[in-house]
Amino acid sequence: MKRFMTAIVILASSPALALNAIPDGVPTPSDNPMSSAKVELGKQLFFDPRLSIDGTVSCNSCHNVMASGTDNRPTSVGVNGQRGGRNAPTVWNSAFLTTQFWDGRAATLEDQAKGPPLNPIEMGMPSEQAVVDRLSTIPGYKKQFEAIFGAVTYDNMAKAIAAYERTLITINSPFDRYMKGDKKAMSNKAISGMKRFEQVGCSSCHNGVNFAGPALDTGTGFFQKFPVHNNPLIAKYKLADDKGRYEVTKDKADINTWRVPSLRNIAVTAPYFHNGAVNSLGEAVRVMAASQLDKKLSATEVDEIVAFLESLTGEFPVQTMPRLPDISGSSLVGAIK
Amino acid sequence: MKRFMTAIVILASSPALALNAIPDGVPTPSDNPMSSAKVELGKQLFFDPRLSIDGTVSCNSCHNVMASGTDNRPTSVGVNGQRGGRNAPTVWNSAFLTTQFWDGRAATLEDQAKGPPLNPIEMGMPSEQAVVDRLSTIPGYKKQFEAIFGAVTYDNMAKAIAAYERTLITINSPFDRYMKGDKKAMSNKAISGMKRFEQVGCSSCHNGVNFAGPALDTGTGFFQKFPVHNNPLIAKYKLADDKGRYEVTKDKADINTWRVPSLRNIAVTAPYFHNGAVNSLGEAVRVMAASQLDKKLSATEVDEIVAFLESLTGEFPVQTMPRLPDISGSSLVGAIK
Repeated sequence: MKRFMTAIVILASSPALALNAIPDGVPTPSDNPMSSAKVELGKQLFFDPRLSIDGTVSCNSCHNVMASGTDNRPTSVGVNGQRGGRNAPTVWNSAFLTTQFWDGRAATLEDQAKGPPLNPIEMGMPSEQAVVDRLSTIPGYKKQFEAIFGAVTYDNMAKAIAAYERTLITINSPFDRYMKGDKKAMSNKAISGMKRFEQVGCSSCHNGVNFAGPALDTGTGFFQKFPVHNNPLIAKYKLADDKGRYEVTKDKADINTWRVPSLRNIAVTAPYFHNGAVNSLGEAVRVMAASQLDKKLSATEVDEIVAFLESLTGEFPVQTMPRLPDISGSSLVGAIK
Repeated sequence: MKRFMTAIVILASSPALALNAIPDGVPTPSDNPMSSAKVELGKQLFFDPRLSIDGTVSCNSCHNVMASGTDNRPTSVGVNGQRGGRNAPTVWNSAFLTTQFWDGRAATLEDQAKGPPLNPIEMGMPSEQAVVDRLSTIPGYKKQFEAIFGAVTYDNMAKAIAAYERTLITINSPFDRYMKGDKKAMSNKAISGMKRFEQVGCSSCHNGVNFAGPALDTGTGFFQKFPVHNNPLIAKYKLADDKGRYEVTKDKADINTWRVPSLRNIAVTAPYFHNGAVNSLGEAVRVMAASQLDKKLSATEVDEIVAFLESLTGEFPVQTMPRLPDISGSSLVGAIK
């Protein structure tokens, strides 16, 4: 009873009960332990455009870690100028997501990393074997794969990339510093915005470490229908055209359901939503309030919530550039015109 | 007379008289002195795809500094999947070149950097002003430009990029170590290849610090006609189709003349020639011997020269990744579908 009372007191006094500072460690699967050699290999692979058929697109092309982990485009551009249908989610802090892709079609970072190389409108490699053959031809890769995993395989490529991605954690956002006790880390406006974020109802879905829902087991998606309430913004931004998770499950209950996206670094990962149709964070807040909560926010409410969301922009740790392993005397993509 | 005799003695005893180890410093124009702040800004600009109309192509897309400073493609891919007509030269050691682009149409690195952003098939920006407007909208860029140069201008953008490029020097190649006294740095095969390289006549053009010709004043191109001697390889690889420097000067004497390209890191910058049509270094050596020197080399001669050329692959210094300055709450390229 005493514990219960304490909880009530905290709930009443702290508007951020459901919100958490970023933790020190990341969830790591037991079959893919971290090592510095594996992370370094994964970084090379992440930045290597030779994972695409014509040598022009790397993981980093759409998930730019030197920026905010995305390409800041509505949808991404793959090989031969082809455009995808959905906005590239940021790779930063993706280690905290319990399911991957907008529609949750991959359970883990490892599973996710196996998608884009073979997607014809992304990196366009014809088969897993074609990727393995190419990597095996590069002595520097072959040597690293053999030392770390024993062999070059497509699954091992994905494991290395996932290990690197687990190092991509932004730290010390004003919000994190505030939650750890530095009450001056957030502006008064941002603190007001945090309260509104909870009062209005945003945090009923956008909670937890990554503002992407509760701490579920890896592979367990936290999905929500979007949009829920009809309003003119939905047609304006074509937000209901893509059926979302239904395209994976073909279950009618999944029509227009999506993984709840993270709000960390949301201010620097415009444009917004699965189709990237909304370019302004303020407008994105208005869309969410109208479509999910059936509320029309005042300009002040939007401004304050935006100030709070801006406080979720963390520090992006300095990294060294990878050195992509060379092959000597010819080019793997040189014969492709 | 004594001095003359000495020169003769050196010429007779050293097969590498016309070849030089890489020096410690790079030529720097008096109106663009180096500073660490300028280099850091230039690095950000070099890696920033927002210098292209749709946010997909950065300088680094085609001149990949994490690889060998090129894209290892025959010709590069710009915005909207458009393909250029010439092979991207490596940015590494470009500071030592006395003229820029295959046809020498830019005198300096500063002049070169102003080309690709406005080229419709490369980065596709509509005007210098459009680039300046975009950079000025990004607070982190505006602040750096104002601190370093006083203002955001297109010329200052080029100066910052050029300053960064002057830091991209590969060091300690086996050849450089050999020339500095480590006689075990090159294999016997590579040493034999070096001798052949001079005996066959390659070094009559490929000499100097960068194996790209004599140390001329900046802006003074060392141009040569290519191909000179007719042979079946020219038609096979379409090596005479592009008129080269003639397209710049419209002077018939310049038909099929080209800047002599650097051979540093040539083994890791395949494919070869202005059109990137030859994917093998050995074949490139055969093409050069036939087309420029009217010689047909034996397999052994080719192998030895290739071994020498492989000894020109230097160490690529470790760099930190730049952090691309964010804008908060919207995307500069987010509105572009």
